[in-house]
Amino acid sequence: MTSDVISSERVEGTNVYNAGGDKLGSIDDLMIDKLSGQVRYAVMEFGGFLGIGTDRYPIPWNMLKYDVSQDGYVVPLDKAQLEGAPRYANDTVPDYDDTYRSNVDKYYGM
Amino acid sequence: MTSDVISSERVEGTNVYNAGGDKLGSIDDLMIDKLSGQVRYAVMEFGGFLGIGTDRYPIPWNMLKYDVSQDGYVVPLDKAQLEGAPRYANDTVPDYDDTYRSNVDKYYGM
Repeated sequence: MTSDVISSERVEGTNVYNAGGDKLGSIDDLMIDKLSGQVRYAVMEFGGFLGIGTDRYPIPWNMLKYDVSQDGYVVPLDKAQLEGAPRYANDTVPDYDDTYRSNVDKYYGM
Repeated sequence: MTSDVISSERVEGTNVYNAGGDKLGSIDDLMIDKLSGQVRYAVMEFGGFLGIGTDRYPIPWNMLKYDVSQDGYVVPLDKAQLEGAPRYANDTVPDYDDTYRSNVDKYYGM
């Protein structure tokens, strides 16, 4: 029997893979709706993936699927999608206001 | 304008106060529903509060109210409630299965 909950400390640092099984990076942080407590975005760090730097990429939580065999999350994203995706340097975290969140969600078709 | 989301890294370590403004401890971790991404419990570390040790206390997320003036969360709990509350040592994290979660929720009248 497995638990239905997972700790934030456990999620942070978990590897992220694409659908082909290639490691893209890892989860750096979670963005949580203050009022409801709903996790809205997993902030991923993609380092050294096909020349993509170590910027942070907010990905809608619903896009992540946990895969037991890989002990990591799988996201259905390819290189072209990541290259154009919303991102920021770790020392310039944006205000996740309505406009920013709307832009991220639209990019991923949410 | 403030953001409606907050990062898990920011929540972890945030102070927790009782309704009287006394510091009880701080948030150590968050327990998140794997499927929905909903934060179910804030795991609080209450250290040295009136003789209560440094065990971890899972508190239903809905009980936490953020207070801007204190830059921390306020929970409506007194010493007697904490003394009888579900807790565990940090190196013996329980399986948050249906039974455990039900016990925690019932204790706090959820």
